Amino acid sequence: MTQTVDQKASAAASAVDAWLSAFRQALTARDADAAAALFADESYWRDIVSFTWNITTVEGPAGVADLLRATLDQVDPAGFRVTEEPAEADGVVTAWIAFETSAGRGSGLLRLVGDKAFTLLTTLDELAGHEEPVNDRRPKGVRHGAFRGRVTWAERRTREATELGYTVQPEVVIAGGGQGGIALGARLRQLGVPALIIERNERPGDSWRNRYKSLALHDPVWYDHLPYLPFPAGWPVFSPKDKIGDWLEMYAKVMELNYWGSTTCKSAVREGDGWAVVVDRDGEEVTLRPRQLVLALGASGLPVVPDIPGREKFRGDQHHSSAHPGPDKYKGKKAVVIGSNNSAHDICAALWEAGADVTMVQRSSTHVVRSETLMDLGIGDLYSERAVAGGMTTFKADTIFASLPFRILHSLQIPVYNAIRERDAEYYRRLEQAGFELDFGEDDSGLFLKYLRRGSGYYIDVGASELVANGDIKLAKGQVTELTEDEVVLGDGTRLPADLVVYATGYGSMNQLAAGIIGQDMADKVGKVWGLGSGTTKDPGPWEGELRNMWKPTAQDGLWFHGGNLALSRYYSLYLALQLKARMEGIPTPVYKRAAVHHTE
Amino acid sequence: MTQTVDQKASAAASAVDAWLSAFRQALTARDADAAAALFADESYWRDIVSFTWNITTVEGPAGVADLLRATLDQVDPAGFRVTEEPAEADGVVTAWIAFETSAGRGSGLLRLVGDKAFTLLTTLDELAGHEEPVNDRRPKGVRHGAFRGRVTWAERRTREATELGYTVQPEVVIAGGGQGGIALGARLRQLGVPALIIERNERPGDSWRNRYKSLALHDPVWYDHLPYLPFPAGWPVFSPKDKIGDWLEMYAKVMELNYWGSTTCKSAVREGDGWAVVVDRDGEEVTLRPRQLVLALGASGLPVVPDIPGREKFRGDQHHSSAHPGPDKYKGKKAVVIGSNNSAHDICAALWEAGADVTMVQRSSTHVVRSETLMDLGIGDLYSERAVAGGMTTFKADTIFASLPFRILHSLQIPVYNAIRERDAEYYRRLEQAGFELDFGEDDSGLFLKYLRRGSGYYIDVGASELVANGDIKLAKGQVTELTEDEVVLGDGTRLPADLVVYATGYGSMNQLAAGIIGQDMADKVGKVWGLGSGTTKDPGPWEGELRNMWKPTAQDGLWFHGGNLALSRYYSLYLALQLKARMEGIPTPVYKRAAVHHTE
Repeated sequence: MTQTVDQKASAAASAVDAWLSAFRQALTARDADAAAALFADESYWRDIVSFTWNITTVEGPAGVADLLRATLDQVDPAGFRVTEEPAEADGVVTAWIAFETSAGRGSGLLRLVGDKAFTLLTTLDELAGHEEPVNDRRPKGVRHGAFRGRVTWAERRTREATELGYTVQPEVVIAGGGQGGIALGARLRQLGVPALIIERNERPGDSWRNRYKSLALHDPVWYDHLPYLPFPAGWPVFSPKDKIGDWLEMYAKVMELNYWGSTTCKSAVREGDGWAVVVDRDGEEVTLRPRQLVLALGASGLPVVPDIPGREKFRGDQHHSSAHPGPDKYKGKKAVVIGSNNSAHDICAALWEAGADVTMVQRSSTHVVRSETLMDLGIGDLYSERAVAGGMTTFKADTIFASLPFRILHSLQIPVYNAIRERDAEYYRRLEQAGFELDFGEDDSGLFLKYLRRGSGYYIDVGASELVANGDIKLAKGQVTELTEDEVVLGDGTRLPADLVVYATGYGSMNQLAAGIIGQDMADKVGKVWGLGSGTTKDPGPWEGELRNMWKPTAQDGLWFHGGNLALSRYYSLYLALQLKARMEGIPTPVYKRAAVHHTE
Repeated sequence: MTQTVDQKASAAASAVDAWLSAFRQALTARDADAAAALFADESYWRDIVSFTWNITTVEGPAGVADLLRATLDQVDPAGFRVTEEPAEADGVVTAWIAFETSAGRGSGLLRLVGDKAFTLLTTLDELAGHEEPVNDRRPKGVRHGAFRGRVTWAERRTREATELGYTVQPEVVIAGGGQGGIALGARLRQLGVPALIIERNERPGDSWRNRYKSLALHDPVWYDHLPYLPFPAGWPVFSPKDKIGDWLEMYAKVMELNYWGSTTCKSAVREGDGWAVVVDRDGEEVTLRPRQLVLALGASGLPVVPDIPGREKFRGDQHHSSAHPGPDKYKGKKAVVIGSNNSAHDICAALWEAGADVTMVQRSSTHVVRSETLMDLGIGDLYSERAVAGGMTTFKADTIFASLPFRILHSLQIPVYNAIRERDAEYYRRLEQAGFELDFGEDDSGLFLKYLRRGSGYYIDVGASELVANGDIKLAKGQVTELTEDEVVLGDGTRLPADLVVYATGYGSMNQLAAGIIGQDMADKVGKVWGLGSGTTKDPGPWEGELRNMWKPTAQDGLWFHGGNLALSRYYSLYLALQLKARMEGIPTPVYKRAAVHHTE
């Protein structure tokens, strides 16, 4: 047995050696076709910034050849090598690799099937000559010696805070100070890129704090670490909203971010090769003039409330889920929650816990997955105590995740969700019996694909589904056609008496949100944000193979989009930060295959 | 060569195996003499809480036998084993060990010379059944499911903050909210011991922020980590005071400490088997009734200003170093700084940098060591980027440090300081040539021993010494006998014109500081705090072999002292927290050899 394992490892190492050697040779010879021939007919090379100054996936030998022909001379890649012993499983050899380019150092993950590459991920991790000042490059903190007119750390910070945005302009303005803006701000600070974060709420973390009181992260702690400063070992698995709020506030402080709270971004227009960004800083109008503008506005930036006849007549409380204060004043009251995704479930459960009479209105089918099952089968191999104990680091887990080509991600996820359905068959049976309409995505690929494609349509069950199954949360179905003084009326004529109506009806698109700042013309020019082009609901084609406009050059120079959950914010903030740093330093950044724009929405 | 290394490693492993086997056997047989016979004639067993519920060092076979006879039946030690491959260097075999006791799990470090133990360190690391909720025991954060009357994390924290100290009494009151109180507070929170920190300053970190503006930690980052939440990789080597202040404030927040700022401890008297502690909370008098009282008041709690004739006549500014605001308003002024230790040097240098005319009055010889040299030769093997790169963890470094017996610590330090003198010979020559009176401690054992014995008498040079050597900071020597309207007069008749006098004259003893809270009688009862009993200046004998009264049971049940730099606060806070937790849980804690009290000062 040991011998077999050793033999397999040795065979894996040889295969990778041979492949990398041939790949190196082809690259050095600038022979795109020879390099392309090392890829299987079905194969995927995903590059994040290292070859393409873009985030892009090319497919098959033809795609590889095209990418290399366009980039080889500029990138001058070298030194492709393994960084640890390759491993083999189920006929796939996996190798962690590193390499250099003309701009810096990269790494990645290679999967071979036979002697051909099946997937290759390449990422640019640092710019040569602009490495982050960490570990043995960390700053000294004080300058030892005696110097006339010394400026202390506190004086420097105070001066920076006073001047930035007024007499000194930031290189980058980040509109939005949630986890996305904060993670990117931290990266930029480490890279020495002057950045200013603009946030409409007063304090970092308020975008969490201000939501309904029972909210907790549905993602577990191992998936949620911010860059540089991982959560301590005693941090709870699921952060309560106020606790993650405190963490973000502390993080922004100790990472020395320039953060303007109580500030709204009113408009941003091009001015020369930069921007004039007009903000309202707590009543004061300030015009910022950065070279780069990052919109990190959050998926929950623009609450959408359906235009239901009779809304003005309704005498009870009504509000969008984002404005729901929590259940305390609704004990004994009749609550109708319109919607059946995460917020709807959380709010229904909290209202029930507080003693309200609760009805959920399901308007369309919903993907539901139990939190425990998702943790175990969905992400446990990468993000869990078990993964950590097995040597998995956050960076490795992120890289593995990033290495799975979007084109085939659904085919990898379908078996996972089949296993989830099997494990929780009885649970799903009970939910359906209660009348709840379930789905697992249009192609049964489950939650993460729904998140990437449309950012909605699911509930990670942390307790509400049992209330739905046992009838404690009443279920109504169909579209809401009218509100009366004290009822919600559905399409089939059902009348639901109500003291409270919560619109858990989701949010507008990122593009709509952006239009409010950059104007409709420019929003149309850059087009749809998020989605892969899968042709499924809310994710119209054509296929792009990457998330539209996220973390990569858009159709508008100097305009960037950033965001996502804590995990995506953590991972992609590095690559967005490197793109911004390279531009600040005047490093050539020729973009390979900037994505075409197909949708103005 | 490889073979020799292997052979040495194998011999080391055998020696440790044989020793541990014999030790286990003797302990199981309750044969104190057999166990004692495994120790060399000159040998030291330092126990931290695991056998003795004390911090104590016994010497030689007789000491070991005495300790074991007193503790074996209660402690029931078992399972002594190595946790990694033993190593040999210079005839000393070193082994990391682990073991169990009736109360919990312990670890330690064993050094063998030949087949006998030369040093043994044993520590209790966790109490069985009361392990910290970390990693796979971390809290879930939210309770999944649906529960009537759910209380959220924010509500629980708010309730706790409202009730604690009023309707709910803390188990522990920690007087003093600097790094000591904060580190201990974090440990207690993790262990589920309700604790309340009382701090006279408004916010955590103010004890740093409020000091002179040029202050930075003289200890490097690797030495300064707090428990649970190490500094990020980009943290500066020497934290500026305001930056460490921000870190402490953030830490107290995210570690969920109960922290009353702007609160002074007015008195503490015994009441039953606990305390009545009267505090002034921002104007409101509150009586706290904890079972345990920890004084973590800091070495800088009680500024001492010498009673110099004529002080009332002096027309310029005069203040203790702790009240020095910084140099900005003294440009072009004549400043006289009385004292020649850390604060005196820092303040002199900052005044010179701001353009003041500065004279330092050296009253007695001072130990000076260059920061760079100290980092390299003094602590670099344990706390440095190089140590980290070589696999050194903070816990291991702390443990190695703790394993060096105080009795022989000076003999280990003397060669280090001899090397320092040699490396920086020219530097020291120039300082002496400038008239600066140097010492290296009474036995030439240098800085750390001075710190432990008396907590004063040294300067870690971060730049001021060059100013002293080149005369930019003028040097005067002797005692100050008088102040006039505009002069400082020395014993030899020297008259120093002055617009500013800074008393960098140190601080009162911890015992004096404690007396202000617990009263003189109880302060006399517990006696001197800090010092080893070395018989050197300010550290009168008899020899105790441990720091008097620090982190261990005192002569007063329920009264504890905690403190030290960030490193000592980090390490010993664990063992103090375990002692407090054991008492809260009613675990028997028979104290072996509670130290006698010899000095009421």
